[in-house]
Amino acid sequence: MRKKPELIINQNKLSRNIDRMLAKARKSRAIFRPHFKTHQSLEIGKVFREKGIDKITVSSVSMAEFFAKDGWDDITIAFPVNLLEMKEINKLAADIQLNLLVDSQYSASVLASGPENKVGVFVEIDTGYHRSGLLPDDPEIDAIVRLVSASGKLGFKGFLTHAGHTYSARGKQAVLSIMEDARQKLNDLKAKYIGQFPELIASYGDTPSCSMADDCSGFDEVRPGNFVFCDVMQYHIGSCSLDDIAVAVACPVVSVYPDRNEIIIYGGAVHLSKEFIAADNGFKLFGYVAELTEGGWGAPIPGAYVSSLSQEHGIVKTPKQFIGKFKPGDVVGILPVHSCLVADLLRPNLNK
Amino acid sequence: MRKKPELIINQNKLSRNIDRMLAKARKSRAIFRPHFKTHQSLEIGKVFREKGIDKITVSSVSMAEFFAKDGWDDITIAFPVNLLEMKEINKLAADIQLNLLVDSQYSASVLASGPENKVGVFVEIDTGYHRSGLLPDDPEIDAIVRLVSASGKLGFKGFLTHAGHTYSARGKQAVLSIMEDARQKLNDLKAKYIGQFPELIASYGDTPSCSMADDCSGFDEVRPGNFVFCDVMQYHIGSCSLDDIAVAVACPVVSVYPDRNEIIIYGGAVHLSKEFIAADNGFKLFGYVAELTEGGWGAPIPGAYVSSLSQEHGIVKTPKQFIGKFKPGDVVGILPVHSCLVADLLRPNLNK
Repeated sequence: MRKKPELIINQNKLSRNIDRMLAKARKSRAIFRPHFKTHQSLEIGKVFREKGIDKITVSSVSMAEFFAKDGWDDITIAFPVNLLEMKEINKLAADIQLNLLVDSQYSASVLASGPENKVGVFVEIDTGYHRSGLLPDDPEIDAIVRLVSASGKLGFKGFLTHAGHTYSARGKQAVLSIMEDARQKLNDLKAKYIGQFPELIASYGDTPSCSMADDCSGFDEVRPGNFVFCDVMQYHIGSCSLDDIAVAVACPVVSVYPDRNEIIIYGGAVHLSKEFIAADNGFKLFGYVAELTEGGWGAPIPGAYVSSLSQEHGIVKTPKQFIGKFKPGDVVGILPVHSCLVADLLRPNLNK
Repeated sequence: MRKKPELIINQNKLSRNIDRMLAKARKSRAIFRPHFKTHQSLEIGKVFREKGIDKITVSSVSMAEFFAKDGWDDITIAFPVNLLEMKEINKLAADIQLNLLVDSQYSASVLASGPENKVGVFVEIDTGYHRSGLLPDDPEIDAIVRLVSASGKLGFKGFLTHAGHTYSARGKQAVLSIMEDARQKLNDLKAKYIGQFPELIASYGDTPSCSMADDCSGFDEVRPGNFVFCDVMQYHIGSCSLDDIAVAVACPVVSVYPDRNEIIIYGGAVHLSKEFIAADNGFKLFGYVAELTEGGWGAPIPGAYVSSLSQEHGIVKTPKQFIGKFKPGDVVGILPVHSCLVADLLRPNLNK
């Protein structure tokens, strides 16, 4: 019996979400290298493996170690290389095909002096998100490619981008035009270097665009992550249906306030994270609310939502006609705004 | 050597923060029952114990179990009782003085039928925060007191409030008037019941007001928590100085973008939480930035701050004159916005 906040997963939806993305990648003749930061779970990794996936993306050396121990042997760490973890990188690279990201000449040159074993290197390209990566016309790209190819231990793999700016785009066309722009930029770079490096690839990662596009042709590799669970954020972007959301957090009801049309749940920022969706008028949404069923959860209760979170408390607002549904000792399902953060919080089995 | 995001604690500041609050509680003749949800640490618990503190507050049954195992034997769970954990509550109550919160007749009556061992019960009062608790004039309070006192196993302890609305107050006077209002409300209730329950107490919790008040007289017990670490949020409220902040997160620098005056750190939402301070113009602040020193960290770099967080990446904006300070492979200190959430994220030793 559930008595504390707990992640619950709908295996059918999860499997369907994977199948759909895998079929799209295959149709597009792109390598499917899903991002495992979303679930950080060996069990879910096994579901992918059973479907034939053998290449993965992670976002830290620790996460690479975690999955390598479970037999994953082709891993890209889609995060600017952390030069302080060269020892761990060397250890990993002795056993698996490890790919790293560099976004500066400085990091490339330190890296070139470091590895004892063969390591693949992607140059990270900023196609508009402006987090990490070099702009496509940055002359440093060429300097990095030369540094990497001159090194005996580094193998130049290609160009990689994460188009995270889809999360602030509005509407399908805006999302798809971000993807198209990234495709153009990566392929222009690829065209420049393919003669010298016939095997180089253009690698693209981002769940909203990969979900909304009919296919992902024009990329050699795709690395979406969040699609496996989906969440209320993806639903708001328009990249999944409510029925695609494969995770919920079971939260005990501890108080019911009929006069305020609010219930208090045991489920706070340490379980659901502080991620929210905001509207202009100050409205904040930290999750939808669903009744738990035998096999999972039902459709979200119309008009009910998590309006506020403190460390362990969540406040759920609900229309008056539903307040009578709840009493202390019940358990409700919360569909999270950001499933990656929730999975990280509720699966503390990874040594961060 | 630090190579991954890591919580660092300045023991001198921590000790000074405890001493200051303890002295204030003693001067006010109030029981000092600090909230341990902030640190969730046995080591920091020992620091408190060595200073003579033997009563604590926590916010979940799991946290009570965690500290009870370490010898803490007088614990209040300042969270509406989770009726689904009666088994665990009974087990705890066999060994320690355990105090619970109720905020409804329903929970009180279920609770009254449950315990095998003596349990203390506070009625939670909503003095304006409007999270959990009953309004001071709610007739349900009297019904709960009668239910509790009629039960053989429940002992009525008094009235308890958390004045969390100080966090949205602006200025010292506004914060102190919230505290004064809570004092008045709890003491009015106390006056009504003290004849029948001569030992009942008025218990008050909230770091900003307990920090800003000259003393806490008029409450029988105070339960601040965050004061032990402080954070950028407390600094913005005006309830601590920058020098009082006793925690930072050591974060490796992985990229430097001089053209954008931005650096990328290995330190994201899974390390710092998504808690931020917002200004009207869309400005968001997820932490201050300091250089690490031999014994800890220096004063925050003027104008430098964490402007954005994704799962593992943090973006630091810095004035142009400081961008040259940083290169990949350095480690910077981030002063967090909300130390409780950061401690929860970076100390995953508690079974949530």
